[in-house]
Amino acid sequence: MQATTSFSKLFQSRLLHQYPAALDREGISGKRVAHRLSELSRIGLTEDQGSNRMSFSEEERAAKELIKIWMKEAGLSIYEDGAGNVFGTLQGKDQSQSIMSGSHVDSVPNGGHFDGPLGVLAALEVAQAWNETGYVPETNYEVVIFTDEEGARFNGGLTGSRAMAGEVDMAKQVKLTDYNGTPFEEVLKQCGLSLKNFSESKRSLDKVKAYVEVHIEQGKQLEERNLSTGVVTGIAGPSWLTITFKGDAGHAGNTPMIGRKDPLVAAGEFVSKLKDIPGQISSSGVATVGKLEVLPNGVNVIPGQVKLTADIRDIDMDLKDRIVEKAREMITEIEEKHGVQIDVQETLNVTPVKLSETMQQIAAESTAYVTGKEAFHLPSGAGHDAMVLGRYVPTAMLFTNSKDGVSHNPKEWSSLEHCVETIHVLKHMLEKIDQTDRSDLE
Amino acid sequence: MQATTSFSKLFQSRLLHQYPAALDREGISGKRVAHRLSELSRIGLTEDQGSNRMSFSEEERAAKELIKIWMKEAGLSIYEDGAGNVFGTLQGKDQSQSIMSGSHVDSVPNGGHFDGPLGVLAALEVAQAWNETGYVPETNYEVVIFTDEEGARFNGGLTGSRAMAGEVDMAKQVKLTDYNGTPFEEVLKQCGLSLKNFSESKRSLDKVKAYVEVHIEQGKQLEERNLSTGVVTGIAGPSWLTITFKGDAGHAGNTPMIGRKDPLVAAGEFVSKLKDIPGQISSSGVATVGKLEVLPNGVNVIPGQVKLTADIRDIDMDLKDRIVEKAREMITEIEEKHGVQIDVQETLNVTPVKLSETMQQIAAESTAYVTGKEAFHLPSGAGHDAMVLGRYVPTAMLFTNSKDGVSHNPKEWSSLEHCVETIHVLKHMLEKIDQTDRSDLE
Repeated sequence: MQATTSFSKLFQSRLLHQYPAALDREGISGKRVAHRLSELSRIGLTEDQGSNRMSFSEEERAAKELIKIWMKEAGLSIYEDGAGNVFGTLQGKDQSQSIMSGSHVDSVPNGGHFDGPLGVLAALEVAQAWNETGYVPETNYEVVIFTDEEGARFNGGLTGSRAMAGEVDMAKQVKLTDYNGTPFEEVLKQCGLSLKNFSESKRSLDKVKAYVEVHIEQGKQLEERNLSTGVVTGIAGPSWLTITFKGDAGHAGNTPMIGRKDPLVAAGEFVSKLKDIPGQISSSGVATVGKLEVLPNGVNVIPGQVKLTADIRDIDMDLKDRIVEKAREMITEIEEKHGVQIDVQETLNVTPVKLSETMQQIAAESTAYVTGKEAFHLPSGAGHDAMVLGRYVPTAMLFTNSKDGVSHNPKEWSSLEHCVETIHVLKHMLEKIDQTDRSDLE
Repeated sequence: MQATTSFSKLFQSRLLHQYPAALDREGISGKRVAHRLSELSRIGLTEDQGSNRMSFSEEERAAKELIKIWMKEAGLSIYEDGAGNVFGTLQGKDQSQSIMSGSHVDSVPNGGHFDGPLGVLAALEVAQAWNETGYVPETNYEVVIFTDEEGARFNGGLTGSRAMAGEVDMAKQVKLTDYNGTPFEEVLKQCGLSLKNFSESKRSLDKVKAYVEVHIEQGKQLEERNLSTGVVTGIAGPSWLTITFKGDAGHAGNTPMIGRKDPLVAAGEFVSKLKDIPGQISSSGVATVGKLEVLPNGVNVIPGQVKLTADIRDIDMDLKDRIVEKAREMITEIEEKHGVQIDVQETLNVTPVKLSETMQQIAAESTAYVTGKEAFHLPSGAGHDAMVLGRYVPTAMLFTNSKDGVSHNPKEWSSLEHCVETIHVLKHMLEKIDQTDRSDLE
């Protein structure tokens, strides 16, 4: 406990260091945000000073309970659904609709202190600012904490938002077991939830006027441009091609070069040429080989097999399909050229979500208004709860400058200045949305 | 014991299956060779029906003792030096000189039954044929079993032949420990040898007129050409370049293609282009990347580091140096092109040995005489005791057709027909050498 207290104090003072006091205006308090980030950092603190808040764990629960206390302090009334999603509502003039903002508080194992909590605390800070300055929104405003965004426990993710949207296939869900082999239902029970209530957590999303999520960028584009805030154009869905190259193993010394069928030579050509494909098709597309394994992996043995996974993403499904198609064409050429046998399995194919143009425009105007700089638009390469919401509700995402682009790591860091500037953008855009009819947001 | 007997019987009958009886001539007996290979296969037989005869082990010793019995049967007088090398001598007309032939009986862990034993039994078969047919060589003829050729125990190898040549640096040798941590001196003691005698095992090699070694090919070149026997041009020395590519790790989705410093893209280009370099410089050169490791090796993470080893071989030192030089030039180009940082360490550099042209010519003539086909010349990519002898003595190597090029594996196989045909070539060439002055062999 001593250790977590001293870490949390240090974390808070690091956040407040060189924070420009002028950002504390219109009810928004940088000190309060720093304090809350620091208090949350104590829950699940790891030896590496990272965060370990598995979904459906005591730590995720403790973080939600702490935020509920702050929600009450901000004048919100609290509701929790059967999936453990927490909603804190600031009552508006018209209670038949709501605007929603939030994120999650679960983490990957030994993750950071910003991925998730920043989005929840940003949404809460706007509620508290409105409450303290007497701003009464036209509709209800809901601050949401979604359960199990990261998916580290069941190798899935976006569980809370998918449950709310009614997207969870319960027949499949009950078959899942966590990293300890514990079935999903048992895990729910352990944290006071039930399968029945979980399956009934679907909400009618046509009553939700808009959803806005603040999140750290997890990339370096804002940092490279010295911007606090970015407007997300869409959320890329990954396609994974798991590719196995099979050739003829042999002794590295006793097999002449001519006639070799070396799968690593073929795989090397694939990896080195894949990088040129996205740029030929799309400005937002990316293609990466991060995982590659060689068999038998001996210095003096021509490999018999190489297995790798190509991760291909774009925010536009058609463009992504074209990149995948071109990669497959290249594989066929390489197969013929090197005489190796190549097997391609599509092991993942997530549909990307383009975010509403109108919502992007509001986000861009608010960014320009708050920061005095033209808004920078960028795609999100990683999935977020906004990806689920974006299929039903006018949705926007704001990215916050993330130091060195590091995430899912104890070193994750965003300066308080960048965080609070993003919160001002969020507040400004929520007020604009509040003044706009839902039909004009689509 | 039951299991080894039944394996050995099966092994022998598999060898004798479809063996052409016409090869049994001039005192050479295929049945005897098959019997001896089978008897040796019982010593150190593994669960996988492979061979486990570590150097300096009870199994290596047992194999030597069994062969000594056969040496006596062939009329040879036996001498064992301080390194455990066994010499069986057939007395010639002039006893001041000798011709030597042999190989080793130690194996890699779970290796095969031909790598080593075939060379010893081939040399012995010639001695026995001469003895039985009353051929008295001009000089002594020595059948040799070298100790610890494979080097699996002390991660070295060619120990017996290097000791005989006086190449072992005793100060370094005594510091070696085996895979169990047992020091070299202790290992010697355990098998009845001593450090003092070991260090005194150097022989004057100017009394050795020639050395010829029969060995399985460990490649597929003879098999592809349907030849029993090949003439070795030289023994390639490997150079190992251990190359580390360092770039910028990042999220595969959130890092735009432009500006990436992806070490796997750079490494992929290196691997795919390295294969073209040897052919530009040498017909006998080869270059292979067999081992490659990616960090952190996650599907959705641009790698931060890739480490690989390039194994470059040639039988000519100058040509090998030029291949290495060209590979290094390519690394510099790749480093500049991809903005990654590349570190190159030369972790091994063994000098290749070119074998005597005259000895090759005798081998080629004998091959043509025995097989009726033009001799095929090929380099040896792996090291052999002939590599040590080749530095001091006119040396030749004959390769025997090796099924699927598999070696160091229980599946190692050479047909008895191919083995015995090679023994006939060996006999023919030893008789030719016997009729030639040493000065004409250089």
